[in-house]
Amino acid sequence: MSEFIPPGTKFAALPSPFAIKRGGSLRGARVAYETWGELDDARGNAILILTGLSPNAHAASNADNPEAGWWEAMLGPGKPIDTNRWYVICVNSLGSCKGSTGPASIDPDTNEIYRLSFPELSIEDIANAAFEVVRSLGIARLACVIGNSMGGMSALAYLLQHPDSARSHINVSGSARALPFSIAIRSLQREAIRLDPNWDMGEYDDTNYPENGMRMARKLGVVTYRSAMEWDGRFGRVRFDSECREDDPFGLEFEVERYLEGHARRFVHQFDPNSYLYLSRSMDWFDADEYGQGDVIAGLARIKLEKALAIGVRTDILFPLQQQEQVADGLRAGGAEAQFLPLDSPQGHDAFLVDFERFGPAIAGFLAQL
Amino acid sequence: MSEFIPPGTKFAALPSPFAIKRGGSLRGARVAYETWGELDDARGNAILILTGLSPNAHAASNADNPEAGWWEAMLGPGKPIDTNRWYVICVNSLGSCKGSTGPASIDPDTNEIYRLSFPELSIEDIANAAFEVVRSLGIARLACVIGNSMGGMSALAYLLQHPDSARSHINVSGSARALPFSIAIRSLQREAIRLDPNWDMGEYDDTNYPENGMRMARKLGVVTYRSAMEWDGRFGRVRFDSECREDDPFGLEFEVERYLEGHARRFVHQFDPNSYLYLSRSMDWFDADEYGQGDVIAGLARIKLEKALAIGVRTDILFPLQQQEQVADGLRAGGAEAQFLPLDSPQGHDAFLVDFERFGPAIAGFLAQL
Repeated sequence: MSEFIPPGTKFAALPSPFAIKRGGSLRGARVAYETWGELDDARGNAILILTGLSPNAHAASNADNPEAGWWEAMLGPGKPIDTNRWYVICVNSLGSCKGSTGPASIDPDTNEIYRLSFPELSIEDIANAAFEVVRSLGIARLACVIGNSMGGMSALAYLLQHPDSARSHINVSGSARALPFSIAIRSLQREAIRLDPNWDMGEYDDTNYPENGMRMARKLGVVTYRSAMEWDGRFGRVRFDSECREDDPFGLEFEVERYLEGHARRFVHQFDPNSYLYLSRSMDWFDADEYGQGDVIAGLARIKLEKALAIGVRTDILFPLQQQEQVADGLRAGGAEAQFLPLDSPQGHDAFLVDFERFGPAIAGFLAQL
Repeated sequence: MSEFIPPGTKFAALPSPFAIKRGGSLRGARVAYETWGELDDARGNAILILTGLSPNAHAASNADNPEAGWWEAMLGPGKPIDTNRWYVICVNSLGSCKGSTGPASIDPDTNEIYRLSFPELSIEDIANAAFEVVRSLGIARLACVIGNSMGGMSALAYLLQHPDSARSHINVSGSARALPFSIAIRSLQREAIRLDPNWDMGEYDDTNYPENGMRMARKLGVVTYRSAMEWDGRFGRVRFDSECREDDPFGLEFEVERYLEGHARRFVHQFDPNSYLYLSRSMDWFDADEYGQGDVIAGLARIKLEKALAIGVRTDILFPLQQQEQVADGLRAGGAEAQFLPLDSPQGHDAFLVDFERFGPAIAGFLAQL
């Protein structure tokens, strides 16, 4: 799986054994990360970025890897997350396949790939692994934890489990718990992979690979990452080929179908299917109400921060706006000066990856006040 | 496929050959239908109902079949569509598998099941077949055409192709054209069926049946037929079984997943997969702009009606509200007294099948003014 790891990736060894929330532990596990900027003498200028399901730790170009990262426009000298001021760490989630230990890694106890023997992964485990990276860098308290999408959940889990570990938090299109529509979508994505005969209870290889299942899962993901409104303007009813091919009845015909197919093709062999299943399920499981005796706001209120910002997008159907409002409400109940910032981006859940005109000033403005 | 046909179904023979819009024709084809009430002497009290993708012609109980129909609460003596006043006809769409000729029927030319040799079906063909049923009953002009969902498209195609065939129209959660989000969803549903090895280019049988593909297609359908808001209140994060089964990793756990599974199981063997593909694609193809030199409103304005009503639901993501507004705008441009009626139902696209408190008075009120 080494092809998944960007050049220049650093690794932090996790304590061994590393306990897993739902039981079991990992021996000899590691977390991939990258950094930007310089840690100041007081070690007080560190920002941690926790990612969505699929990104690696290469959020932006840096000395070790000049290639553009997945948040290139947001992170760098003079950019909204200004690396002239901040020392920024981005980690690849535990359970992923981009350098951190996950189901595609070798189990040192057996010398075999973990596959489904990997322990049941929770968002809390991802958070705890990220915490170990921060600790390994000698940072006692972060200036800010930024979490996008699934990373918004990981960030809340980080703050819930590690009191006083950060001064502030930016929750970007995240949530304190999964709601049934999102659970349903992710359940279908997992089912598509599981139904692929090549998945074979996780025992696939490059020759027998659950390509069709991954294709369906990715396409369904992209459908929910964007918005109908954006697509109306972007694709309309444009066809890319009016000819119906004899050997492919019911084949693709509209531009929107070609767009999905392109996304799927780029993703299918760039992400490990078992890792996808584990990370996807961890999102369904996460619920901040576990920290508040069944009450989400009470759970979030246990987080003690100076300042917080929860940003969302009106067209997001996967992590809808009321979920970011809930995060802000809960953090405010805990005493933080917490702001809820709804944005009008048409791009849906993925807006934070593309709408830098709106997200850039929002994040830069928050960080400027720290 | 006879198990798909409700008892008491009537059949109208189509002219033979029956020409198909995109080429080819059907010989010896028929359309299944049911009726309620009595046709008056002037033959002026007839209402035609055109259905969504999956329903049969049994919209409500009648003398021939006392079992409740799929629109039982809407149709009958004293009900919103009052069969003491109206003579009501509901047809099963051409291309379906509930009694009308479709891909699961026997091709009289070969004595084999059509399967993928069935001609490429358009919404216009469904409309023309329904028109032949109405003509066979000696009705020159309908009092009203009611179309739900896909049936809203079929009704517009009916009115576009047959001038002066109706005095009025009720478009229920329908549209004048498919938009890219809906195309994407239906494309994924079709892909799920096509990717199932048992689909086998349409050559399945009861033993080798594309059950997994149909399950995925149906689940994805149900996800888009309802609304996230309804599910938040209905399912929340309730689990139906906290035990994770060893033999079913990543199996179902939340109530919302069980709900989808139940829907899928009931549907998978009750609808012919090839028929599903044909009808699904016909929706993507339909575009009233073909009748208006590339302009939807101009196309709709060619329809001449006395009155029209377009009803939609704010939570509908598959046929969003602006599409019913567009239908009303277009019919008004054609001279009809056309009303657009947005409803606050939380149930999404399927609201017309369940929210009779809102849909009942809306439809009853419109019909009372005819």
